[in-house]
Amino acid sequence: MRALFFDGKLKFTAEHPRPERSDQEACVAVSLAGICATDIEIVKGYMGFRGILGHEFVGKVLESGRSELVGKRVVGEINCPCGSCELCRRGLGNHCPERSVLGIKNRDGAFAEYLVLPDKNLHLVPDTVSDRDAVFSELLAAACRAFEQANIREGEQVAVLGDGRLGLLIAAVFIAHGVEITVIGKHGEKLAIAHGWGARTELIPGDPRDLRADIVVDATGSASGLAYAMEMVRPGGRIVMKTTIAAPHALSLAPLVVNEITLIGSRCGSFDHALALLAGKRVGVGALISAEYPLERAEEAFKRAGSGGALKVLFDISGHHTG
Amino acid sequence: MRALFFDGKLKFTAEHPRPERSDQEACVAVSLAGICATDIEIVKGYMGFRGILGHEFVGKVLESGRSELVGKRVVGEINCPCGSCELCRRGLGNHCPERSVLGIKNRDGAFAEYLVLPDKNLHLVPDTVSDRDAVFSELLAAACRAFEQANIREGEQVAVLGDGRLGLLIAAVFIAHGVEITVIGKHGEKLAIAHGWGARTELIPGDPRDLRADIVVDATGSASGLAYAMEMVRPGGRIVMKTTIAAPHALSLAPLVVNEITLIGSRCGSFDHALALLAGKRVGVGALISAEYPLERAEEAFKRAGSGGALKVLFDISGHHTG
Repeated sequence: MRALFFDGKLKFTAEHPRPERSDQEACVAVSLAGICATDIEIVKGYMGFRGILGHEFVGKVLESGRSELVGKRVVGEINCPCGSCELCRRGLGNHCPERSVLGIKNRDGAFAEYLVLPDKNLHLVPDTVSDRDAVFSELLAAACRAFEQANIREGEQVAVLGDGRLGLLIAAVFIAHGVEITVIGKHGEKLAIAHGWGARTELIPGDPRDLRADIVVDATGSASGLAYAMEMVRPGGRIVMKTTIAAPHALSLAPLVVNEITLIGSRCGSFDHALALLAGKRVGVGALISAEYPLERAEEAFKRAGSGGALKVLFDISGHHTG
Repeated sequence: MRALFFDGKLKFTAEHPRPERSDQEACVAVSLAGICATDIEIVKGYMGFRGILGHEFVGKVLESGRSELVGKRVVGEINCPCGSCELCRRGLGNHCPERSVLGIKNRDGAFAEYLVLPDKNLHLVPDTVSDRDAVFSELLAAACRAFEQANIREGEQVAVLGDGRLGLLIAAVFIAHGVEITVIGKHGEKLAIAHGWGARTELIPGDPRDLRADIVVDATGSASGLAYAMEMVRPGGRIVMKTTIAAPHALSLAPLVVNEITLIGSRCGSFDHALALLAGKRVGVGALISAEYPLERAEEAFKRAGSGGALKVLFDISGHHTG
């Protein structure tokens, strides 16, 4: 099959062996797949992964032991826990230390004609949700998680720091739930999208103390985001942290203690929540698609995805399934 | 009056003017006062404060507009908010940007024969609580705050990192509330105190992953405490952060996001909670007193308080009131 393989370098191949499924797994023919910041990090060599990249996808089930899945359009959760360790038994499978993760850890991913995931990871895509909407499910679920963890109380003011794809989706989820929100970012044309959805927007730099909020979501993806968020958030407030910076960087958390701020680490979220928002047309993700490429043009696609101006770059793999 | 004044250097003086009280303030004759880590930081020049040091005290009300206070033994909350700003109106007076803080910011402190605080900051000390117990109220209240913010659920495991005075008091509060706790520290003789109260204890260094807990309280006071806590805490767990390090230091918060940890900044707490624990003899703070000095021997007292082996060092000011 055709696939995008990473072994220190990104390589397109038309001759990759098709993945084998085990008893409780399904084989999915991928239709669309999205490039995520994590993929870009992997290609830069930060994660140690070797294999087929990609974890945001929508596709059609080709084979599964569950006959009700076969032929259906699906999206899928990316964490595949062991099911038996202490964390799995406590319902924290997403944190299982033995888990494989689609296109990220010990499991080939979605930048290929076919992928394999456990049956129980799959979610049926409602008929009213297009492929181009459904491919955002994984990222939108992560945005929903930020909303759920923020746990907003009446009258609290919310700001999202960062106008990238995740920041905008987080804003969309808050707006879909009737929350007034301010999006703070560096890109006028990206902020314009949030403004179109009903958000207040602010171009940085500004004085963070002029932009006070009870809850700040840091989706900047940059090391300076948290310091800015700590200056912005009101004493007693909460910061939901989406930014992952692996390398140590200089930081003082003294304001966190002095101002009694709570910092909430936030990762993957609920596909059910995300699919319900998409099915109800409550978030408009279409505006976030910057470009679509075939797998063969991977280098170009990654370059575009990594550029400052781009939002979501997709691989269109539909209609190319060669078996 | 006799007082310990800091103007870049620590100076004992027998001739300091007695503080004047305003209408809604009380003048308190100090009996005992404790040296806190913040005092040591101020003397090192970190906080920019000039004036009489000290914020942990017990004393007797000499003058007040509230006649029911006069002659009574009291302890006092150290934050004096403006009462009219947005944060004060929202009940967050402890975070009022205009507040003065006893012995820390814009208000002379407790290392003197007399101090002045707003009437409403004072709490009566129950007859069953000795001066040597009551002087711990402010620090014990901060420990109670860690317990309250931890918000423990059935079956969760709790660890306290740090065996200094605050770490031990935090352990005492958890134990008083029936929580099994592990205290992790560097000093065998300090851990022995916690062990005597019923805590499990562990000498570091050890592998933090062998010491898993759902809730970790960082009371190390050192920059390395948080990294250790992030390795110890289970995914989905919580870290209550008591350590304040003003200078930026190298740190990666990636584990916080990946493992969805919540980091809770924690500062001052409830005097009512602390006094109730002391009145019920539910925490034994006496074991934490390392030494007592008269104000004249301040240099010696600060040296002792700053040494690794010491817990709480007190100034005994009772019986010296000269008016």
